[in-house]
Order: sequence, then structure tokens, then C-alpha cells
Amino acid sequence: MTRQYHSPPLGDVTVRDTFWLPRLKTNYLVSLDHQYEHLQANGSLDNFRRVVGEAGGDFEGPPFIDANVYKWVEAASYVLATDDMPTLREKANTVLSLIEQAQADDGYLFTYFMLGDNSGRWSNVTMMHELYCAGHLIEAAVAHYQALDDERLLRVARDLADHIDERFGPDKLDKIPGHEEIELALVRLYRVTDEERYLDLAGYFIDRRGRDPSPLAAELPELERLIERDSFSKEQKESGWSVVGYQDTLRDESGAYDGLWAQDHKPVRDQERVEGHAVRAGNLYAAVAAYLQEVDDDELFTAVERLWQNMVTRRMYVTGGIGSSPESESFTADYDLPNDTAFAETCASASAIFWSHNMFELTGNGEYVDVLERILYNALLSGVSLDGTRYCYSNPLQTDDEYHRNEWFYVACCPPNLSRVLASLGKYIYARSESELLLNLYVSSTVETTLSGTDITVEQTTGYPWDGDVVVELSLDDSTEFALGFRIPGWAERWDITVDSESVSAEPTDGYVTIEREWHDGDHIEVSLAMEPNAVVAHPEVESDRAQAALRRGPLVYCLEDIDNTEPVQHLILSHPDSLSARYTESILNGMTVLEGRASLQDLQEWQDMLYRSLESVTESATDFTAIPYYARNNRESTSMTVWMRLA
Amino acid sequence: MTRQYHSPPLGDVTVRDTFWLPRLKTNYLVSLDHQYEHLQANGSLDNFRRVVGEAGGDFEGPPFIDANVYKWVEAASYVLATDDMPTLREKANTVLSLIEQAQADDGYLFTYFMLGDNSGRWSNVTMMHELYCAGHLIEAAVAHYQALDDERLLRVARDLADHIDERFGPDKLDKIPGHEEIELALVRLYRVTDEERYLDLAGYFIDRRGRDPSPLAAELPELERLIERDSFSKEQKESGWSVVGYQDTLRDESGAYDGLWAQDHKPVRDQERVEGHAVRAGNLYAAVAAYLQEVDDDELFTAVERLWQNMVTRRMYVTGGIGSSPESESFTADYDLPNDTAFAETCASASAIFWSHNMFELTGNGEYVDVLERILYNALLSGVSLDGTRYCYSNPLQTDDEYHRNEWFYVACCPPNLSRVLASLGKYIYARSESELLLNLYVSSTVETTLSGTDITVEQTTGYPWDGDVVVELSLDDSTEFALGFRIPGWAERWDITVDSESVSAEPTDGYVTIEREWHDGDHIEVSLAMEPNAVVAHPEVESDRAQAALRRGPLVYCLEDIDNTEPVQHLILSHPDSLSARYTESILNGMTVLEGRASLQDLQEWQDMLYRSLESVTESATDFTAIPYYARNNRESTSMTVWMRLA
Repeated sequence: MTRQYHSPPLGDVTVRDTFWLPRLKTNYLVSLDHQYEHLQANGSLDNFRRVVGEAGGDFEGPPFIDANVYKWVEAASYVLATDDMPTLREKANTVLSLIEQAQADDGYLFTYFMLGDNSGRWSNVTMMHELYCAGHLIEAAVAHYQALDDERLLRVARDLADHIDERFGPDKLDKIPGHEEIELALVRLYRVTDEERYLDLAGYFIDRRGRDPSPLAAELPELERLIERDSFSKEQKESGWSVVGYQDTLRDESGAYDGLWAQDHKPVRDQERVEGHAVRAGNLYAAVAAYLQEVDDDELFTAVERLWQNMVTRRMYVTGGIGSSPESESFTADYDLPNDTAFAETCASASAIFWSHNMFELTGNGEYVDVLERILYNALLSGVSLDGTRYCYSNPLQTDDEYHRNEWFYVACCPPNLSRVLASLGKYIYARSESELLLNLYVSSTVETTLSGTDITVEQTTGYPWDGDVVVELSLDDSTEFALGFRIPGWAERWDITVDSESVSAEPTDGYVTIEREWHDGDHIEVSLAMEPNAVVAHPEVESDRAQAALRRGPLVYCLEDIDNTEPVQHLILSHPDSLSARYTESILNGMTVLEGRASLQDLQEWQDMLYRSLESVTESATDFTAIPYYARNNRESTSMTVWMRLA
Repeated sequence: MTRQYHSPPLGDVTVRDTFWLPRLKTNYLVSLDHQYEHLQANGSLDNFRRVVGEAGGDFEGPPFIDANVYKWVEAASYVLATDDMPTLREKANTVLSLIEQAQADDGYLFTYFMLGDNSGRWSNVTMMHELYCAGHLIEAAVAHYQALDDERLLRVARDLADHIDERFGPDKLDKIPGHEEIELALVRLYRVTDEERYLDLAGYFIDRRGRDPSPLAAELPELERLIERDSFSKEQKESGWSVVGYQDTLRDESGAYDGLWAQDHKPVRDQERVEGHAVRAGNLYAAVAAYLQEVDDDELFTAVERLWQNMVTRRMYVTGGIGSSPESESFTADYDLPNDTAFAETCASASAIFWSHNMFELTGNGEYVDVLERILYNALLSGVSLDGTRYCYSNPLQTDDEYHRNEWFYVACCPPNLSRVLASLGKYIYARSESELLLNLYVSSTVETTLSGTDITVEQTTGYPWDGDVVVELSLDDSTEFALGFRIPGWAERWDITVDSESVSAEPTDGYVTIEREWHDGDHIEVSLAMEPNAVVAHPEVESDRAQAALRRGPLVYCLEDIDNTEPVQHLILSHPDSLSARYTESILNGMTVLEGRASLQDLQEWQDMLYRSLESVTESATDFTAIPYYARNNRESTSMTVWMRLA
């Protein structure tokens, strides 16, 4: 099995979308600026300045703070691929220079040890996250190189990758990272360098994991000693986060090593369920899917497909979020999806998007894009405020009126991670092979590409996600035979496709209606996806969602906030699911399609001071309700929010 | 306001009940024996032997382990009040002698310090529980004295109370107990000794609480130092319990003292809500209600009534259990009543029974007995297996199939506490004043008492709680005018009372239909309470019970266990609440009335691997279900159990 599809280069895709373009602009005009200020203020950039001698003082932040700088560079690079933004370019260049200068002569780069105990290098990759940071540096470098054809950061990345490759491996340092990330980065680095060593090293890290004796288990006692004397742990504790908190997750009740949390319990190819820290898991399996695009390994493919199915059919919130436990930021058990304490970390959503996208590229199956779309429009997008200045680390499906978004975090992994996904949206809209172009996401945009040897321009125009009507116009010099595939999302119960006003009657295969024919300049395709409000229920084993329904329309999951409703949303009963209707309004949060319907609720007055009463004595009255898209949750004053609505 | 009613002496009440008598027999024939063996085995009795020089070795158990011995003596004494059981009497005498001999010359008695650091006496009453243990010793002594007219233990109790009274008070050791219990004990001791000092000391402990500066706050730093070096804490930690765990609950996030957990946040008279550790709270307010039977204090009465209402209308499970948090064994917030993690400690149920009973005696209001009955038949009785050998410390309303009862606990407060409530059941059936007898609980029994100067015998015969028909026969030498009050439980929607076959048409006042007239020998009264199966729902603010119903019939709350049903009970939907019917069957657990009905459930096959699907696509099929009384839960092989049943 090899890679079936790949994305056109980011520079070949222009987004014109009325839904997305404002979000992308906010991302690069507001969020990246705002994040840069925080990276300045919280010491992330100063740590590099300290290494190069431009600043004094001690290392600041958690040990893996460098990664946020790299993610920011990656996000900025995606923006610069399509938009020439001088201020952003200048900032990126400042950061790039710092990174270049900070790298040690031997290629090493990790400011925590460079500013502290140099002898600690590679001594504890379970928690010290050197390989995690290296991965993000490499991803940033590949992005920067692809965006601007600028090799500066790529040289740094190669030197660091070479440094690691010289040291790690079965006959060298036989270790694996405690937090996966470098695996995917190495596959990406291989792709732009053709250096097979990088692919092999990714394969080593992937396949060494979960085998006895575990290098993580071997490091754990030393890590615990290190934490005892770690001068950072006090500050980290005070900041509500601690390295200390997590080594416990790698021991079972008897104190024995248990690798589950770090996906080190058994080899990936033997794993049955997605387990442990959700970001770690998502990063690992995203890497496996990318690796399989380059290397045939049926057993590994069967495993990663099984794990993806386990995630999607047992362990994913209706919003696409993953990770049920706020304590360990991790997966818990099949069907365990509590709503108010849902972790559903923004970074985990990003990793599940990468994983799903790589699975799609590998197989060409639209099922993966359905999930990618669900995560993107809901769990991920919910992670940043509409104005681009406040974030959610976790994305619960129910909040009370004391809940609020945060401007920044001590562990600030999510903000730049979310920004790099948004900035690379263009990657996910189209996919192509030699003679086929797939429309994966419906986003008003233009792509210029080459199919069957002919340059073509595809112009997509749509009101998605507010409506399901898509118009596609082709421009090509010479009529050419190639295939155009239109994804029919899993949520669409009916659809219609016309080519030059003539209906196409094909059933979708693997989630696509694919039209292979000779296409002409000016060909006009219309795709119409029936987009109706829909109440969905969860599998009966999902205890947290029992006797409740969530509202969906198209790719969007909705939620109810007290602020839009006259009655407390937690009390509303969806007694008339057939009353649901959609209405576009400018009056809420600059314009969105809301869902409206009739609900029942019990008369609280009538309850007086009773705590329990006979069911037959309860009377209900009717009321109207309004639901907004989940991504727009918690963007106004504090208000209770719920995705799931009582059915009785 | 003074005491309106009191219980006839235990020896004047004979229980003949087909429901209760087997439980009472199991309690004294099996449980008390079994508990005695554990008290032997776990060092509780050996600690006393060590003090008197009859055994060697170090103190065993948690510091407050003496209390379990005292509770056992109290339970045994109640049994001996009505049943002459030579073996039990012999065991009780053995224990009594040990206690007598162990007491120090100055009256002090607490084996933890007597066997260890004697200088620790009264140094830390926040956690060391000397006053708590003293309270249980006193209660046992009063019970033993009242049951057998034997003053031995009462002398010990007086000496200990005098010892305490000499040391504690505003001008002496200005301290209050960390765990309330002695307050109620002192009121009871006052009642049998007429020694006002004891009542005053109870009043001091009650009213000192919650005032600045807090003696508990002052002790906390020293306690924390003590815990650091406490040789017991390691063992306690290993046993899954630790003194250490709880001092944290007395500090807020900033580390400042916060007395809420120990009801020390404000004076009782200013308290608005039941807060903190549920057993502590229940003991305190039970004492306040008893104290108010002796001392007029309107402000304090208003407070304790407000607190009782808060408990009953906001913070009590449908089973009568209290305390939502398993971590701190405490109340949490209004309407926060999670089912699977419900703590609802058996000891807290006991304390809420005492509190409710004292409120009733004070006011004569049947509302308190309604709650007492609910707790007794459900939350409390659920704490011991039907065979009397296994216990539940907590009483959740939902369990999975790995849940099981325990034979004993390291902190074994609950088993003897439950036994003393069962052994004193006779206290709660009747209440009397000079010229009035109230039938509070419907239990086949006979009471011999004196009303308006005439000796009468009341013989009550009923199939309660399986049916609501009660026959009462009076025997009296001379026709006399007095009042008989029949409690009309809050759950009874209809009732009928006849005297010598003539219907009585009075409406209940304060929960009683009271018939005042000249009664004759042989008068025959029939009370008929309509006992129909009933589905109840919780206040809409109770998130854990939304869209769910609980089944009740008469005083019993029901639950569903997988073992009685063909489908998993968590999946059953009570779609036809009007299908409920009651049926007595011998085939389940030696005979009980089960509830049966029709439910719906979704076809799991149809779900295949879907995690979410459209509500309108879901089909349901019908099935029969069987529910058993909650008190009988978890008495067979491991099985999932739920009190609340989905409504959609």
C-alpha cells in the first residue's frame, strides 16, 4: 500500500471563503502577533537569546518550551507561503536567526539543557522532551522550506536530525521519546531531503516502542530522582502544572512500570485500542500513517486502521474531540465520554486531524476526511476565540457560567498548534494524484494544479458550512481526460451533482462521487448537499449521553448557551426534534446559522422545595430555544453551555 | 420549645415483624458475633488488653479505633434490653471489664495515647478523636445502663465526662472536637444523671464551634508536624486510609484554614447549609436537636431546622443517603448528587436518623419521621448484606459488575454503627407524651406503656413494607381518654382509617391523623395506606438524575440489577411508567415484593460500530424488567445495579 493522494503545495491554493477567510486573517493578523508577544514575555525567545549570549538570567518555563517557538514558526511559514506579510516575515526571520545561532556545533538544540545541566542531554527522553522539541523544529523547517524555498532552517533541522541519527538506534542509544512527535517530523524531513536515514530513524522510533525492555521504564527511576531535585518543579507546581504530575501515570498501582499512558505497553502493531495521553497517541499514529505512505507494512497498517476505528467508534466526542480524562489528558475506556470534564485537548484535535489526513492520503477513503472535517469545524475551531486572542486548552461539551477562555498558558502548546492547523487549511481542501483531483473540503477557493499533464484551475464557490451548495468552475487550456472526485460527507443524507446542468447519477465510492471524463475549459459543476438540522444520539453504552441528543447540521455540531435562551439550557428538553429549523442571523457573533426549535421544560416554581416528586405530577411548558455552532461557544459573557440536550 | 415526645423504653417494645425480626436476629446472632471476632482480630480489644497489661505489642489500627468497641457495646446493650442472650452478655461483660480496667485513675481513656505518647493527651482533638471516642463510650454506657440497670459502664462514663469537664471550657482548654460525637453523648448522659454540667459542656462544644479564633485552626500546624513523624501513617497509607488525607480538607487553596469540612466555618446558629464531612455534620446537628429538647434557644432551633431543610431539599439522595463526595466523605453543593460516585456513608445515614428523630421529638412533626423512615429502609439498610456478614461503607446508587461488599474495613466505623441502629429499632416505632401515643413506624410489634395514668398495651400487626395495611388492637384495664396518632407517610397518596370498623375522616396534621377519645379494651383500629408503585423524578437542577426516574413503593426505593433482567439495566428505558406493578415473590432473596414493568431498549446490534446516529433512525423494542428493593442490592453475584432508570 502506498500513498494514493497528496495535497497541492500550499502556495497553489487560494482561499476566498466567507467562513474561513476571516478566521485565517484573524489567525495571522491577530493570533500570531499575540502569540509572538507571549513568546517574548514568557521567556521562550529569551531562552534562545540566553543560549546565544544576548540575554541574561535563567531558563524560563517548562523544559519543552522551545516547541512553542517552533510551532509558531511553522504557522508563520504557512501564512508566508500565500501571503506576503512583511511584519510577520521580519518576526519569523528574527526567530529563525535565534534558532540558527543557538544550535550547538554538534547539531544539538534544546535550550533547557543548554542553559542548565549540559550533562543531562539525552539522559532522559521520557519527560525532558528533547526529541519532541526536535520534531517540532523539523516540522517548522520543512514548512519554512516548502513555503519560501529558504533552506536556513532546513539546515538546522538536518544538522539536528543527523545529530540524533548518529546517537539513537538499536546499536546506539536504544531509546524512544516519552512524547511522540519526532516520528512524523522525520518522515516529512525525508520527503524534502530524500535522505532515507531519516525515514529509517522514524521507523526505528515507531517500531521500538512497546517492546521489552522499555527504555522509558529504564529511565523512570532516574527521572524521579531528577524531579526531586529539579529546581523548576516548584515553579511548575505553582503554575498548576508539573513534570511531577505525569511520571505517576507511568506506574501502576503497585508501582511497576506501565507504559500505557505513553503508548509503550505493547508494539504499535499489536495495539488494540487508542490508549494513554491523547496528543502523544495522535502524534504517534499520525506518524505511523505517514510512514506507511513510504514503507509497505501490512501488519502495521492493519494496526493503525484498527486503532483509528477504535478512536472513532468508541472514544471520540461528537465534536471530534479526544481524551476523556482531565487528570491525565488521556483516553480512558471505550464509551467513557463525560461532557463537563471532557478534556478534548486542542492539541489532541490537531494530532487527530494529522492522523486522519495521513490515513486518507494512504487509502483515498473519504471516511477519514469526514472525521477530519468534524474535528476541524468543531473540537479544533472551538479552541480559539472568534477574535483570536483567547484559547481553550480543553474543549468540554458542557460548561457552567464560571467557565472562561484564557489568554495564555504556562504550558502553551495549544495556541501555536491550533494556529499552524488554521494556517495550513489549504492543505486539506484538495488532494490530487496524477490524473485525479479530489474536493475534500468545501471551501471557496481556487487551486492551480496539473492533471494528466495539463495545467488546470479549479474555482470552488460555496456558502458552506451554512449551506451545502457548491459551484465548481474549471479553467484549462486544452480539453483533457482526468477525474474529479467530490466528497459526499457521511452526514449528507441526500445530494445532487450536475455537470453543465446535467445530473450525475453515480453512487459514491469510498465517500466520493468521481467523474472521470474529458473536461473542457469553462465546465461548470454544481454539488448540492442536503443540509438539514438533525438530532443525534450516542451509543447506549455512552452513559454520559444517555437520554440526550446533540444537534448537528452539515459538518457543524451545535451547542446551547444560556445567553441566547430565556430558560437555563440545562433544563431544556428536546421534546419536538422535528421542530428544528436553521436560520442565518447577523445578530449573533457577526453572523452564523443558528438552529431553533421548540423545547419543553418543567416549571421550577412548581417544584418549590421538593427534591423528588412523582413523575406523573410533573407538568411541562413549551419554550423556544436557539443553538449556536459549538466552535462559537464561550465567546461572549460567561454563560452555561451544553452540547447535549435532555430528551425527557 | 421543649421536647414533645419521647420513646418508650426499649424493653417495653417487642418486635414481632416478618420483615424486621429476621433482620434483627441476623444482626444479633450473626453480625454482632462476626464484629466481635473482627474486634478481636484487628487489635481493637487487644489495645485495651495492652493498657491493662494483659497483652503485649504496639497499639493497632487508626487512632480512633476504640470507638468501634464502644459502638459494639452499645449495640449489644440494646439487644440485651429485650433478649436475654447469655453468650452475647458474656462477651459484653468481657469488654466492659476491659474498659473499666483500662480507664486511668484520673478518668482518662483513649488507648492510642495510653499505649504511646502519653504527653499527647488532649494536645490535638482536631484529628486524634479522643473526644469522639469519649462520646461513643458515653453513649454505650447510657445504653447499657438503660438496658440492664447496670451502672458499671456509666461510672466509667461519668469519670471520663468529669475528667473532660474539668479540663475543657472557655476558661480552661478552649477546644472543640475535630469530629463531633461527644455533644450528643453529653446530652444523653445528662438525661440519665441529671448532672447539668454535662448539658452545659455539650452546649459549650456546640456553641464554641465556628467562632474565632478557631481551636481547630490553632491545632492544625502541630497536627501536620505530628503526621509527618507519625509512625502510624505509613500503615494507614498502606491500608488505603490516612489521617494525612484529611487535614488537607481543612485548608483552602491558598493554604489558609477553612473550617467548612468540620462545620467550623461559622457558628451553628449562623450556618445556612449542611456542609463538610457528612457524619460529622449529622452528629453535630443531632446533638443540637437533642440539646434543644433541654434548653430553649429559638435562634439555634431556626438554624438547625434550616440546615435540616437544606439537607432534605437539596443534598439528600432519593435513598436518604447523604454525602456526595467519596474523596472527602462530605456534602458538596446543592443538587450535586452523582449516583455512581455517591458516598452516602452508612454512618452518615445513622447520624441523619438520629438528627431526624431528635427533630421529631422536639417538634412532633411527622415530616422528620418520613425522612427517618426513608433513610432506615433504604440508605442505612443497604449498608449490610442480608446475611449480616458483609458491609458497605458507602452506598452508591449505581454500581458496575466489579462492585462488592466487604467483610470488614481498616476504618470500621460503619458495621457496629449500623448494628446499634438496628438493635435499637424499637426506639423509633412509637413515641409518647403524657396522654398521647404516636405510631411512627409500621412494624408488627407490641408496646406496653402508660397513657393518662392507665396501663395500656398496643398490638400492631402489619405486612409493611410489602403492604400498607395495619391492624392495631388495644388492651387496657379501664376505658380512658387519650390520643392515638397514626403517621400518614408523605409517600401515601390515599389512606383510610377505621376505628371498630367506623371510618375516621380527619385530615392529617403535621403528618398524623390523631384520634383523641375514650378508648376501650379491645378497640380495633385499621389503617390502610395505598401502596402503589411510583416513578419519581428529581429536581431539574439535579444533573445526575436528569431524564431519569427512580421507582418507589411505600417507604422503599427500588433498584434494578442485571441479574434479574434479560437486558443490561443501564440500557432500559422506562417508556411505560404506567405499566409498573408489584408482586411478592419467594424466589428472590428469601422473599420480597418486586416491581415489574415494561421498558424499551435500543437494539445494540443495529448500532453496529456507530458511535452517534440520527435520533429518528433509532428503533426500540420492548422488554420486561424487574426491580428489587434498594436495601437488597448487591447481595448476589456481582452485577450492575442502578436506582435511576432512563426515561428516553
